[in-house]
Amino acid sequence: MQSTKHISSAQNPLIKKVLQLKDKSRERKKTGLFILEGLRELQIASKALYDIESILYCEDILENTQILQSFNYDQSISVSADVYKKLAYRDTTEGIIAIAKSKDHQLSSLAFDTENPLILIAEAPEKPGNIGALLRTADAANLDAVLIANPKTDLYNPNIIRSSVGCVFSRNVKMGTTTEIISYLKKEGIQVFCAALSASKDYTTVSFKGPTALVVGTEHSGLSNEWLQNSTQNIIIPMEGEIDSMNVSVSAAILIFEAKRQRKLN
Amino acid sequence: MQSTKHISSAQNPLIKKVLQLKDKSRERKKTGLFILEGLRELQIASKALYDIESILYCEDILENTQILQSFNYDQSISVSADVYKKLAYRDTTEGIIAIAKSKDHQLSSLAFDTENPLILIAEAPEKPGNIGALLRTADAANLDAVLIANPKTDLYNPNIIRSSVGCVFSRNVKMGTTTEIISYLKKEGIQVFCAALSASKDYTTVSFKGPTALVVGTEHSGLSNEWLQNSTQNIIIPMEGEIDSMNVSVSAAILIFEAKRQRKLN
Repeated sequence: MQSTKHISSAQNPLIKKVLQLKDKSRERKKTGLFILEGLRELQIASKALYDIESILYCEDILENTQILQSFNYDQSISVSADVYKKLAYRDTTEGIIAIAKSKDHQLSSLAFDTENPLILIAEAPEKPGNIGALLRTADAANLDAVLIANPKTDLYNPNIIRSSVGCVFSRNVKMGTTTEIISYLKKEGIQVFCAALSASKDYTTVSFKGPTALVVGTEHSGLSNEWLQNSTQNIIIPMEGEIDSMNVSVSAAILIFEAKRQRKLN
Repeated sequence: MQSTKHISSAQNPLIKKVLQLKDKSRERKKTGLFILEGLRELQIASKALYDIESILYCEDILENTQILQSFNYDQSISVSADVYKKLAYRDTTEGIIAIAKSKDHQLSSLAFDTENPLILIAEAPEKPGNIGALLRTADAANLDAVLIANPKTDLYNPNIIRSSVGCVFSRNVKMGTTTEIISYLKKEGIQVFCAALSASKDYTTVSFKGPTALVVGTEHSGLSNEWLQNSTQNIIIPMEGEIDSMNVSVSAAILIFEAKRQRKLN
């Protein structure tokens, strides 16, 4: 069912709901809903079969309202420019915001389309920007899954959605504790490569051709011992400069694309 | 000569000078001086033989003032916590700021320690954070030079220094127009690989073993035609997901470390 109404008051209950969902992780958890902003994000979420409950758009900003017809949603609401300004999270906004239903990100729901998966695991990433960047690289590499171990933030944090450019929707993202994920990987026979500054094995000298999980920790403290002690092999990206760390999304990209390169060779 | 005095007034001319150097590119250009903040940054700059004119430190914050003795500088000045707060650019500051002399970054001063250089070129990068991230990767890979073509910002922008974690000092960074740099590369016989979404040659199928320049453009508009038409080979990092671009520092890292991998082979 698609109905259109107009809201011009910031006191409207729906507007208040949007603001709460945007700002409060607790509210997102309680309702199972989240906010997404931007046309490309909405397109990626729709393609990934997210349920869109409401679309709020501002006719003064959205260039082509016909585009709404390309989405499935329960209701669309036109909002005034003043109201939209209160809702919009991004500077360069496109006049479109949606309320959508969260998906199930429990590890138990993980399934692969392939028998030889390549997955990225990030332990306890803190900065939403880093998580977004990891998801963006995971998308470019078409990884089979991204697992977040001991998550510190909920996946529908607006900063993650924004910095992932919507790739949080296109990827198979699951969360669990480090213990649960290690147990899962062992059960499935997926080899585990942990990136660690303490490792001595150059990442270019191992084979990522079999079912592979690449595991990265935080820039600040690296991976937990639980990961390092349960890996098939700890690996290092040799660094030869003045500093001893790279941004986690850069390190992950180097490992992921080396795995992609090896797998192309066959 | 090392002398120590104390400043507790934000009206002091030296404090005003620091603020101007921090905020104004024009002032940095005029005086040939810039501001750097943080212990690691100062250590990297010192090691790279930057001339340190003044060190300003706050005894309430800097844990160990003995460390000043490990640097060469003209004068050191203790400043009050209130004054320091006005000067500090970063949130988690270490109580140390220095005024240092810029180096020569003209292309004509470029020299290599090797006959087989590996260099990164970024055309017209806009965001200081991206430039910092590129320099950080360049440091980790120990690149022989980083060239910035048609620069949009001066190298001593505090955001570049901060996001490069001081790697702006450790690297051989030169600037010039795209035309000048292309002409230089041709003269020196350095092969040019331009990363472009329009390219069809997979980056893993070319050889970076000879003298090599890897060239990246902006995320938004890519490389200019001048680069694309003057390259040895335009290359692409194949992307298989929903979106068609990666962060420029991620793309650059993938190319740089593939070149490093190839060069380790023999």
